[in-house]
Amino acid sequence: MPVDSNGRHFDRIAVLGLGLIGGSVAAAIRTRKLAGQVVGFAVAGHAQKALSLGLIDTAAPSLCSAVSDADLVVIATPVPTIGSVLGEVTTYLSPTAIVTDCASTKVSTIAAARQHLGEAFERFVPGHPISGSEFSGPSAARSDLFQDKLWLLAPTPDTNEQAIARVGALVMAIGARCDQIDPVQHDVLFAEYSHAPHALVYAICHAVANGPNAARLSELAGAGFKDTTRIGATAPTLWSDILLDNRLNVLDSVDRYIEAMVYMRSLLESSDRDRLLELLEQAASWRQGLNGEGA
Amino acid sequence: MPVDSNGRHFDRIAVLGLGLIGGSVAAAIRTRKLAGQVVGFAVAGHAQKALSLGLIDTAAPSLCSAVSDADLVVIATPVPTIGSVLGEVTTYLSPTAIVTDCASTKVSTIAAARQHLGEAFERFVPGHPISGSEFSGPSAARSDLFQDKLWLLAPTPDTNEQAIARVGALVMAIGARCDQIDPVQHDVLFAEYSHAPHALVYAICHAVANGPNAARLSELAGAGFKDTTRIGATAPTLWSDILLDNRLNVLDSVDRYIEAMVYMRSLLESSDRDRLLELLEQAASWRQGLNGEGA
Repeated sequence: MPVDSNGRHFDRIAVLGLGLIGGSVAAAIRTRKLAGQVVGFAVAGHAQKALSLGLIDTAAPSLCSAVSDADLVVIATPVPTIGSVLGEVTTYLSPTAIVTDCASTKVSTIAAARQHLGEAFERFVPGHPISGSEFSGPSAARSDLFQDKLWLLAPTPDTNEQAIARVGALVMAIGARCDQIDPVQHDVLFAEYSHAPHALVYAICHAVANGPNAARLSELAGAGFKDTTRIGATAPTLWSDILLDNRLNVLDSVDRYIEAMVYMRSLLESSDRDRLLELLEQAASWRQGLNGEGA
Repeated sequence: MPVDSNGRHFDRIAVLGLGLIGGSVAAAIRTRKLAGQVVGFAVAGHAQKALSLGLIDTAAPSLCSAVSDADLVVIATPVPTIGSVLGEVTTYLSPTAIVTDCASTKVSTIAAARQHLGEAFERFVPGHPISGSEFSGPSAARSDLFQDKLWLLAPTPDTNEQAIARVGALVMAIGARCDQIDPVQHDVLFAEYSHAPHALVYAICHAVANGPNAARLSELAGAGFKDTTRIGATAPTLWSDILLDNRLNVLDSVDRYIEAMVYMRSLLESSDRDRLLELLEQAASWRQGLNGEGA
């Protein structure tokens, strides 16, 4: 079924995992009536919470009952569970159903899908909504979390074109901007733009919290420190999983960050004002450009 | 003069330097009618701009004419200029006038004031409004920049109590929260909470901008990267001066940051999930506490 006369993209969408992302996907679809039914399956607490918050139409009693009649299965469980979830999904998946996921890493997810889904692998559309918050769980879910945000699809050469098109259309109907990216490139770039910065910020929070100056920070710190470390409040389990899953790329980025800090340190140590100013000017000019404030 | 019947704290306030901070101080005082007159003196372009924006009542043609009849002189020029500005101020300062500053470092500013102000040193009230933005210059000035923000005074044992009280009263009338801090402690703590994080963020921006993955960042980066690096767009000259001025404290903080990153790196390298999760949990819990969100 393509989009029907009521604007429905799918008859029955199963969302597996109902935390911040899964809950928001379900709510975004349900609010906009993009599916006949939104069925959720998650760990017990999350499923009931999502139902009571109106994020889903039905809380399925089992993964089997969630997936069996679905024409789209959205996997939004933590990265380390995706292999086993796919292993279960493949058992119950209808022969035409499409599967997509929301994981922050794509190479390992695709490998797991290839391993577990068999001939259904061509109907697996790897996805990554670039959106999140420092809050987690179904209570943090918002039907507008993806509004005007980027939602990447990272298909392989084996991925069915029609499946890509249908997931892309749903993503756009949710209000996100949809684009495609090569999965390997995705993991390299998100190590640099997201995963390594998270690693860095957690490390800084760790250093400050365990350093000699922790006590007066909440009283004295300005907006700069709080903005810089905001992502350090994000769900630790989620992020240790992402960092480990994409560790080779993250290490590559982290090594370049450390190298830059050691260089910065050497300029301070030697009071090299010219080179320090040059570094800061280059960095600030680049960062301002990112705001669209000019070169 | 204490506060008069019109709510005026000073007859004539001279603000030296009319960038983001000086311009905002002038505008905050002028908007709230806390002085009979707000006279500004700054580099040519800034003074005329501040006048045309209504941040000041008068643009003085010289430092001499700005300072001569002032009963409060607010120094808001860049850190490296403060010594020479104080040297000029002392020539024209009236025998009862109070002097304060807005510099992000206090030990060097106090040393310069002690050296240049002579007997007027007791009327020098070292100050630091904890406020700023990634924008700079008089056009970025806002009369509410300090509203509900912290504004620290870092007096020495030699500082006149009445001078402290009058500057403190003005700061509170501007809408800021006023507190006092030991100057040495100030420089240690702000190295940790502000200066070293700036150094770090500039280094990261430098690493990403010069790394292999810079091209697609503006298209792909989420809010996390932008928040983390926001302060990397801040005025490079201002910040190279601050970092160098407070370099020993900054180096101490930066070294602990690098150490934490190297530790984080080792946990990723060895895929030590338990220790990595422990680090992230501790960091996130501490950072959440900073939001007032619980432990």
